[in-house]
Amino acid sequence: MSKLIEVELLEAAAIQSILKNGPQSRTDLARELQYSRASLTSIVGQLLQSGILVEVGEGKSGGGRRPRMLDINADYGYIAGIDIGATSIDIAVADFRGRLIDRYHEEASVLIHPKTFIENLSTLLLKLFDKHNIKADQLIAIGMGVPGPVEFSTGRLISPPLMPLWNSFPIKTAFQPWFPVAQVFVDNDVNIMAKGEQTAGAGQGLTDFLFIKIGTGIGCGIISDGRIYRGSNGCAGDVGHICVDYNGPICHCGNPGCVEIMAAGPAIADMGREKARSGESQFLARRLKENEGVLSAIDVGDAAAAGDRIANEIIRRSGYLIGGVLASLVNFYNPQAIFIGGGVSKIGLSHLSTIRQATLRRATALSTQQLRIEHSQLGDDGGILGAIALTLENLFVVKD
Amino acid sequence: MSKLIEVELLEAAAIQSILKNGPQSRTDLARELQYSRASLTSIVGQLLQSGILVEVGEGKSGGGRRPRMLDINADYGYIAGIDIGATSIDIAVADFRGRLIDRYHEEASVLIHPKTFIENLSTLLLKLFDKHNIKADQLIAIGMGVPGPVEFSTGRLISPPLMPLWNSFPIKTAFQPWFPVAQVFVDNDVNIMAKGEQTAGAGQGLTDFLFIKIGTGIGCGIISDGRIYRGSNGCAGDVGHICVDYNGPICHCGNPGCVEIMAAGPAIADMGREKARSGESQFLARRLKENEGVLSAIDVGDAAAAGDRIANEIIRRSGYLIGGVLASLVNFYNPQAIFIGGGVSKIGLSHLSTIRQATLRRATALSTQQLRIEHSQLGDDGGILGAIALTLENLFVVKD
Repeated sequence: MSKLIEVELLEAAAIQSILKNGPQSRTDLARELQYSRASLTSIVGQLLQSGILVEVGEGKSGGGRRPRMLDINADYGYIAGIDIGATSIDIAVADFRGRLIDRYHEEASVLIHPKTFIENLSTLLLKLFDKHNIKADQLIAIGMGVPGPVEFSTGRLISPPLMPLWNSFPIKTAFQPWFPVAQVFVDNDVNIMAKGEQTAGAGQGLTDFLFIKIGTGIGCGIISDGRIYRGSNGCAGDVGHICVDYNGPICHCGNPGCVEIMAAGPAIADMGREKARSGESQFLARRLKENEGVLSAIDVGDAAAAGDRIANEIIRRSGYLIGGVLASLVNFYNPQAIFIGGGVSKIGLSHLSTIRQATLRRATALSTQQLRIEHSQLGDDGGILGAIALTLENLFVVKD
Repeated sequence: MSKLIEVELLEAAAIQSILKNGPQSRTDLARELQYSRASLTSIVGQLLQSGILVEVGEGKSGGGRRPRMLDINADYGYIAGIDIGATSIDIAVADFRGRLIDRYHEEASVLIHPKTFIENLSTLLLKLFDKHNIKADQLIAIGMGVPGPVEFSTGRLISPPLMPLWNSFPIKTAFQPWFPVAQVFVDNDVNIMAKGEQTAGAGQGLTDFLFIKIGTGIGCGIISDGRIYRGSNGCAGDVGHICVDYNGPICHCGNPGCVEIMAAGPAIADMGREKARSGESQFLARRLKENEGVLSAIDVGDAAAAGDRIANEIIRRSGYLIGGVLASLVNFYNPQAIFIGGGVSKIGLSHLSTIRQATLRRATALSTQQLRIEHSQLGDDGGILGAIALTLENLFVVKD
């Protein structure tokens, strides 16, 4: 039933080129794809006829008649982008060029049964569609990010620790009763955030970079040769369980000294609570009391911003450990850039600067020559924008 | 002057498909490339006319006339594969299908001026050619691996620590007086060894794996989506300087506790000498005396093979540290396999089994589900076979 768009090899190349570089003339496109103008004209003809491409006015002339420009047909249909967090969902609808039309955020737990979850999610999407007079069967594709390892080809989660009921659940078919023609793509949340940065954020124009999400855990999205790199089991980028101290505390994975248990949000909060209780940090002691015994990594960031020396030490310790792991990854992968996102990236610039220092100190000189280490640009929007970009990257499949 | 072979996009795809999968009929090739039989027939016609492809007898029939099979024209020209070590060179000549015709090994130092080095190298190649009546202008391509970081597009080494005189030296043009039509491709030695394993060794059929070379240093070749991954500065895979102990000994790179300084060949030899001198290992004390004060990692391997407990501990310590680094890489990269090669891989199976144990213990369960950790299959031949495969992967460039 689903409306997978089958195209020839060169048709797919033409679509991807326009998605990546924007509107182009037939001559530009032929040059870009390194193919003869005659063959390209026939391919474009087919894509215009099927309604995937449209002509959108005239470009600059190289002398003669001004060439007509080709673009993706924004009205061909709609795309939904979904970003599932452990305790929240973000949904968005975009036109067929990937431009955001509207979005919606809601708290929701992934601990309920996935069938019910997808039902609720579909209802929310339909409500969003209603606002813009979009019908369910106009939805061409759904892109969805989830906080766990995904087998991309089937769209199933594999033993996800945060959402155990979803193990092997057929997400793709669960959407079918609601959106009969939509093609569904599911990927790990950090992967789609990396894709988002590449499409609309700090990673524009880059082909090889890492997106590091620091929150309750630590994860990494890998863009390799312009595409998401998933590894052989779909769990590439699971950097939270890289060891930074063989004698460190035991992680929930069972091993000692994982960077996640020692440097992510909960570790920062724990250290903050300790220093609040011991009275070493008066700021944190006051905040702990105000919050009735609860203290988060953000509170530690607030303390550091207010000049609290102890809080600043906690943050620097986290940054130092994370930077050590990034140095290893930089030596191995030699990326163009590392973008840092996630909740903990909001605890202040001293965290980022310590990460940067520790990475540069430990990685080889050549691998850091042009390396950028920066905060991500898209923040919370990275997920939905990446989910939409993911569909456009995968929607056009070559005929079998 | 150089005979770079310019082809259309689909011609290049046809050549690569035959290089990868062997002889194919036009029908097979059209199916493989997902293109119409009619278009393919015209492409194949051009490739037959230019002499790159030949028809090689008949394949199995699907009912009617038996189809003619297409293969690369082995006599189109010759390819040289060169593997430069710090103290040795291996050269080989192959036909245009990449099949080895002859090879030669010689001790040589990379510390002399590269111009002289390339002159000597070219003379050796011509001598090898003479034996088989091959003329210099029949050499279509040279693939060369060097022990240092390479900017692949220009074929220049970038600040190579082992061969400082080669920094930025134009290797490609230095071959031109000797082999006027040969296209030259230069890459890091570990990258070409990984490529060799993929083409003819343990990595056949795999798309994402690591090749770890353990010798004087520790390096890593990365195959990603079937191709060599080089990173943004050409230095991806420089894993020898990943830190395993922040309080460890200072490495020649200036940082403390790099895995290379603590676990590669010299570290094993140093520990062996210490235990020989202290008398803790009688086997090593004897060997040190026999060798007149010199002891290598191989000697420590011999001691372990003879049942020496102390030598075995030294080897296990090295394996444990290397396995710790590999666990981090497995979590990050989730490869299908890791193949271990280089001189130190010959010190016995207990080294490999400790590496394997340490990797599996520390990496996440999902990432190790199907992970293979094995010795490389090609041993010392990996370099020249990889260099030859490298040329075939890059020789056919798409017309501009």
